[in-house]
Amino acid sequence: MDERQALAWLATAVEEARAGLAEGGIPIGAALYGPDGALLGRGHNRRVQDGDPSAHAETAAFRAAGRQRTYRGTTMVTTLSPCWYCSGLVRQFGISRVVVGEARTFHGGHDWLAAHGVEILVVDDAECAAMMRSFVEDQPDLWNEDIGD
Amino acid sequence: MDERQALAWLATAVEEARAGLAEGGIPIGAALYGPDGALLGRGHNRRVQDGDPSAHAETAAFRAAGRQRTYRGTTMVTTLSPCWYCSGLVRQFGISRVVVGEARTFHGGHDWLAAHGVEILVVDDAECAAMMRSFVEDQPDLWNEDIGD
Repeated sequence: MDERQALAWLATAVEEARAGLAEGGIPIGAALYGPDGALLGRGHNRRVQDGDPSAHAETAAFRAAGRQRTYRGTTMVTTLSPCWYCSGLVRQFGISRVVVGEARTFHGGHDWLAAHGVEILVVDDAECAAMMRSFVEDQPDLWNEDIGD
Repeated sequence: MDERQALAWLATAVEEARAGLAEGGIPIGAALYGPDGALLGRGHNRRVQDGDPSAHAETAAFRAAGRQRTYRGTTMVTTLSPCWYCSGLVRQFGISRVVVGEARTFHGGHDWLAAHGVEILVVDDAECAAMMRSFVEDQPDLWNEDIGD
């Protein structure tokens, strides 16, 4: 995939993560882009804001994109390695690519996705990692709740 | 697990599936039960009703249960074998058991869950299978959309 484009798209996910943090929520953001580069949906984790444990960043972006006939050629961009729930979403709906901001603070299912034919780019972005590290240090209980630990 | 209890719980999921069908939706229902047998949440697929592709039966039941500190000892009951998205949900949050109404019309990720320590009971319920078979025959495009096919 085009790395410059991936980095530009990651900026949208980072904006979402920052917005979630400013709302007192878990700072993970995501965006779904179409094969033509159109933004289909964007969102962030809303566990705290909506009391909704199903609203992970990736599922929020997927939901915001509404019904799509196919996900072939789409790219999910997320600030953090996708958990099993979000990895399952990507595999089930045939999302073609995942851009992962960082996988240092949490290593989810992106290797499993790669093994099942999903194109993966791990950016290892310093801001994504710093935002998560700081959040996990400040609110470990909330983070553990979000990943069912 | 207690099979009589599992069958009683499955009835809740079947009620949800019937409700979804009556609303013109995809007839898949689910419910999440606590370790003590308390109903934590119930729901059905709402793709058509809400235009929400993220609202599978299992994720709807999970969402309805609200925030939980742990899912240890909980049971997800669903009328249909869980897709990868819903299987990922079960694995990530450490839901202990899944009762599957049927896996004839769709074989999702329940074997994968079993391999990762989730207790699985496939009931092979005739009504669940008949409801799905009839739906898939009547609206194959909608069904394929729901599983990203």
